[in-house]
Amino acid sequence: MNDFASWMRVQGARTETALDQALPNPDTVPHTLHEAMRYAVLGGGKRVRPLLVHAAGDVTGASAEACDAAACAVEMIHAYSLVHDDMPCMDDDDLRRGRPTVHKAYDEATALLVGDALQTQAFIVLARAQAVPPEARLKLVAELAVASGSVGMAGGQAIDLQNVGKAMSREALEAMHRMKTGALLRASVRMGALCGEIDAQGLAALDRYAAAVGLAFQVVDDILDVTADTATLGKTAGKDAAHDKPTYVSLMGLEAARALAAELRQSAHDALAGFGARATRLADLADLIVLRTH
Amino acid sequence: MNDFASWMRVQGARTETALDQALPNPDTVPHTLHEAMRYAVLGGGKRVRPLLVHAAGDVTGASAEACDAAACAVEMIHAYSLVHDDMPCMDDDDLRRGRPTVHKAYDEATALLVGDALQTQAFIVLARAQAVPPEARLKLVAELAVASGSVGMAGGQAIDLQNVGKAMSREALEAMHRMKTGALLRASVRMGALCGEIDAQGLAALDRYAAAVGLAFQVVDDILDVTADTATLGKTAGKDAAHDKPTYVSLMGLEAARALAAELRQSAHDALAGFGARATRLADLADLIVLRTH
Repeated sequence: MNDFASWMRVQGARTETALDQALPNPDTVPHTLHEAMRYAVLGGGKRVRPLLVHAAGDVTGASAEACDAAACAVEMIHAYSLVHDDMPCMDDDDLRRGRPTVHKAYDEATALLVGDALQTQAFIVLARAQAVPPEARLKLVAELAVASGSVGMAGGQAIDLQNVGKAMSREALEAMHRMKTGALLRASVRMGALCGEIDAQGLAALDRYAAAVGLAFQVVDDILDVTADTATLGKTAGKDAAHDKPTYVSLMGLEAARALAAELRQSAHDALAGFGARATRLADLADLIVLRTH
Repeated sequence: MNDFASWMRVQGARTETALDQALPNPDTVPHTLHEAMRYAVLGGGKRVRPLLVHAAGDVTGASAEACDAAACAVEMIHAYSLVHDDMPCMDDDDLRRGRPTVHKAYDEATALLVGDALQTQAFIVLARAQAVPPEARLKLVAELAVASGSVGMAGGQAIDLQNVGKAMSREALEAMHRMKTGALLRASVRMGALCGEIDAQGLAALDRYAAAVGLAFQVVDDILDVTADTATLGKTAGKDAAHDKPTYVSLMGLEAARALAAELRQSAHDALAGFGARATRLADLADLIVLRTH
C-alpha cells in the first residue's frame, strides 16, 4: 500500500502540472473566463479519472506523456459537468470541493461559459496531443465524445433530472448511472489503454473492470451522501434525500448497498486477472474507490 | 444568380438531410433530450456555415461527402451556442427562428443539456467522418475546437457580456466579434478547404476572405437589428439597443455601417481573385451575407 500511496502522489502531482499547462493562460483574453476555468479545474478534486487513465496506460505500455493528454481531457469534461450540474437550473448547489461553486464565485453566465469552454478545451487538448499517433488520437476523440454526449454523461444527467421525485427500478437506476458517471469512468480506462497497445480481448476485460468500478463508484457515492458530513465530503451532504432522488441506499437500504459495493470490488479484481502485475494500479484504484470516505 | 439559387437549394436540402442523419435518433433514450436537440437544430436557420463549408470545399476539390461532416459539425456548434445564448442568465430571449427558444419550449435544465450535448455531437460527427482521411479529420477537430472555445466563440461571448452597457472602441468591438462570430465562420471556410487539397498560400487567401465575410456578417446583423422587424428576422428585433449593447450602428451610425459592409464585400471578392471560377460560390455567399434582409 505504501507503494500505491507514492504512485498516487507522483501521478497526482503530474496531473496537476499537466492540467495547469493544458488550461488557457489567465494572462490571455478573456481574463475572467480563463481565471474561472482554472478555478473550476485546479486545486481540488480526487482526480479519479486521470488516475484511471494512467493506471490503464500501465497495462498497455502507454507513455506517461501520451496518458497526460487523455487524463487532462477526461478531467476537463468531468469538471465542465460539475460546473453545469451545480447551476441553479440543475442541482442548484453552492459548495463544491469545499469552495463556492463557479456560479457563486463568479455568476451564472460565467459558469455557463466556463462549462462550455472546458468541454471544448478537452477536445483541443486531444487534437494537439503530439505524444499520441494520429490514428490513436482520433480514437481518443471518439471515445471521449461518445462517453460525454447524449448517450453518455449528458444523457444520464437528463434521465436523472426526469426522475427526481419518481420511483425507479434498480435496472433503471443502473442504466442511468451507467450513462451519467459510468460512461466517463469507462472512457478513462479505455483511453488510457488506447494510448498503448491492446487487443480486443484485453479491451473487453478492461470494459468489465470499468463497468464494475463505475457502478461501485456510484453506490459508494450514495452511501457517503447518507453517512458522511458536508465538511468531509467537500460538497453538501444529504442532498440526494433532500432532492428526493432515487439512490442505491433509498432503493435497497444501507447494508445491502454496502454488500453490493464489496461485490463489485471483487468483480473489478476478477476482470483484471489476465493482466498480472501490469494491472496492479487498476486493482489498487478499485479498492480506493470502494473504500474511500469522501 | 439563377445558378446560385439552384446551388443554394441543392446544398440546403443536402445539409438538412445530413443534419437529420448526424443527430441522435429521437427513438433512442433519452427521448426528450434527443427530441430537443433536433428541435434546436432542424427546421430553421440560414445554414450560412454549412454553405461556406461546401463553397470552400469547391475551391479545393473536396468531396461533398467529406464536406457534409464538417458542415454538420459546424452547424451543431452554432446551434449549441444559440441555445445557451438564449438562456435567461445570458441574453434571455424567447424567440429564435420564429419559434420559442429551447428553454421556453422545454425548460432551462433541458436547454443547458441540449447545448452541452450538441457541442459533443459535433465532435462525434467529426471523429466518425469516414469520408475524410484520419490526418485531415484531426485537423478538422482542432480547427473546430479552437474556433469554438475560450479564445474563439465562447471567449467572444464572455467579452460581449462583460461589455453590456459599456462604451467600446471600434477596435475592441472588432476584436470581440472576430472571436464571437468570426472564428466559427472562418473555421467553416477552413474546414471545407481542408476536406480537399490546399497549400499555405491558398489557405491564407481564404483566411482574408473569411475575415472580411465574418466582419461583414456582424455589421449587417447590427444594421438589421435596427432596420428590420421581428417577423422578418425570426428573432426579437431591436434587442441590441434594448440591452444597451455596443454595435457598429451605435458606434459609427447607420450610413457608415452600410458603407463598411459594402467595403468588406469588396475585400472578400478581392481575396478570392487567385482562385478563378472555383471560388464562384464563395463570392456568391459574400454577396448573400451582405445583401440579406434577415
